[in-house]
Amino acid sequence: MRDLDREETYLADRRGLALELRDLVGSGPVPKEAYPSPHAAIGYGEGWFAAALSGLPDWTEEGSLFVLEGGYDLGEGAALALLAEGGRARVVRLGFREGAEVYLPPSPLNPYRYLRFLLLATGREGALKEVDEALLRERRRLGPEVPLEQNPAKFLAYTLLERLPLLYAPFFRPLEGAAQSLLARIGKSLSLTPPHSALEFFLTGMEARHEQGDPLAAVLLGEGEAVRLAKEILETRVDAVAEVPPQGESRLAQAVALWYRLAWTAYYLALLYGVDPSDPEVLERLREAT
Amino acid sequence: MRDLDREETYLADRRGLALELRDLVGSGPVPKEAYPSPHAAIGYGEGWFAAALSGLPDWTEEGSLFVLEGGYDLGEGAALALLAEGGRARVVRLGFREGAEVYLPPSPLNPYRYLRFLLLATGREGALKEVDEALLRERRRLGPEVPLEQNPAKFLAYTLLERLPLLYAPFFRPLEGAAQSLLARIGKSLSLTPPHSALEFFLTGMEARHEQGDPLAAVLLGEGEAVRLAKEILETRVDAVAEVPPQGESRLAQAVALWYRLAWTAYYLALLYGVDPSDPEVLERLREAT
Repeated sequence: MRDLDREETYLADRRGLALELRDLVGSGPVPKEAYPSPHAAIGYGEGWFAAALSGLPDWTEEGSLFVLEGGYDLGEGAALALLAEGGRARVVRLGFREGAEVYLPPSPLNPYRYLRFLLLATGREGALKEVDEALLRERRRLGPEVPLEQNPAKFLAYTLLERLPLLYAPFFRPLEGAAQSLLARIGKSLSLTPPHSALEFFLTGMEARHEQGDPLAAVLLGEGEAVRLAKEILETRVDAVAEVPPQGESRLAQAVALWYRLAWTAYYLALLYGVDPSDPEVLERLREAT
Repeated sequence: MRDLDREETYLADRRGLALELRDLVGSGPVPKEAYPSPHAAIGYGEGWFAAALSGLPDWTEEGSLFVLEGGYDLGEGAALALLAEGGRARVVRLGFREGAEVYLPPSPLNPYRYLRFLLLATGREGALKEVDEALLRERRRLGPEVPLEQNPAKFLAYTLLERLPLLYAPFFRPLEGAAQSLLARIGKSLSLTPPHSALEFFLTGMEARHEQGDPLAAVLLGEGEAVRLAKEILETRVDAVAEVPPQGESRLAQAVALWYRLAWTAYYLALLYGVDPSDPEVLERLREAT
């Protein structure tokens, strides 16, 4: 098994994703002007999770509509922007598409950058400060220089290795899909997310086939009654249960900090599998096709 | 391997779920009065998919708010109903909880029944007629009496057997979670749903581990450009690709007919695994706890 505390393991990181992960806080474009309120945001691809985190409505007839065109929307984002441009609201297109007013080159870490732009553009500097402080605290213990026994991201990566992660975040369900995207794009591996009725899924979904397939590793994100019930149900049904308690003060900071923890975890998982944690060129073709 | 065209295979259906599946159309409670508009609906548990299908907003300050309390919401449904009852809107509670105005005993097939009630209560009899016609057409070829070679649900069940289904429905994404719930509650087995950026998930998520774990069977629900791209990506990456083209005229009828097809598929899958397709008693404990 590869060792995350040895330098040669990091040779697989050929494009230096560790640096992008480390320097994430404060990166990305900032608003150059004031955008009239009320504000709304709709997100596609890399912008989807940021729009969900922002808590903004997804449409407005006046004020400003931020269209986060993070890719793979088969023209839906552009069509929506066009529709909105016929109305009274100011339409602000962000992303890597032609015609974007604010440009972000593709990256699996862009959810943070879209969110940062939205928080600054809607006058929520205080909320961004809480997010950034939580991420900086996390960063101190998640980097490659922090050895396994003090590094929860390395530890979680070993737990997920050769298992199928099952992600559950009852306090903010969109985090599950965002984590699934990170584990695919960075960790190059599959993970499971439960449907709306997660607890009954946990109770019934493993009845027919106990001993087959990949061993499951449940990752319980956050805390509370639903996490407690999920743990009770899953303990006897899966191979491993990892609890990841929230870090950070606000619910927003907690969600982004957990997302950041999983980004590092996905990074280490890629290294353990011996694959490049950066995106393969294959995504470029998809961007052109969609 | 068990044979779906032999009677003894059906002995595992100890509570007769086949009859409930066959007689689904037209079942469930009907409105006894007119509910003032505007209408809104919020759904939990078994009511969640129906609320998503209805296209209704999830909150209204006046008119009628339907709260579909389908279980496992840890009191969220009741708290929301209580909040709404302080306002001007008429609050109509449906479900199996104490105090529900409209009672539905728990069933994995309830999404249809909640939807039927909503369509009737909001004056959309024409939409319900289209749904019911599509389901009745499906029923003619999905029942146990229809042999394998003419029965697409039996055929799909054999395709999913001993594989991990990967569900993708780009024309109506909530169908993926609803199908995942059916495969768990009826088929007693796990399935995968992709995150928001499904196509990039398909491209990257299988890079690290090609030959391990369960063989995947992609189930592509509906048609169009996204289905075509998904098929192109997945064909070389998974063990089997099953395309399920839409049946029915409206988008609503198509979504419900595909859901019905998957309910029958989950039923046959349970029989192939030799487990009872009905819900185990274990869910009753969960209902009490949540």
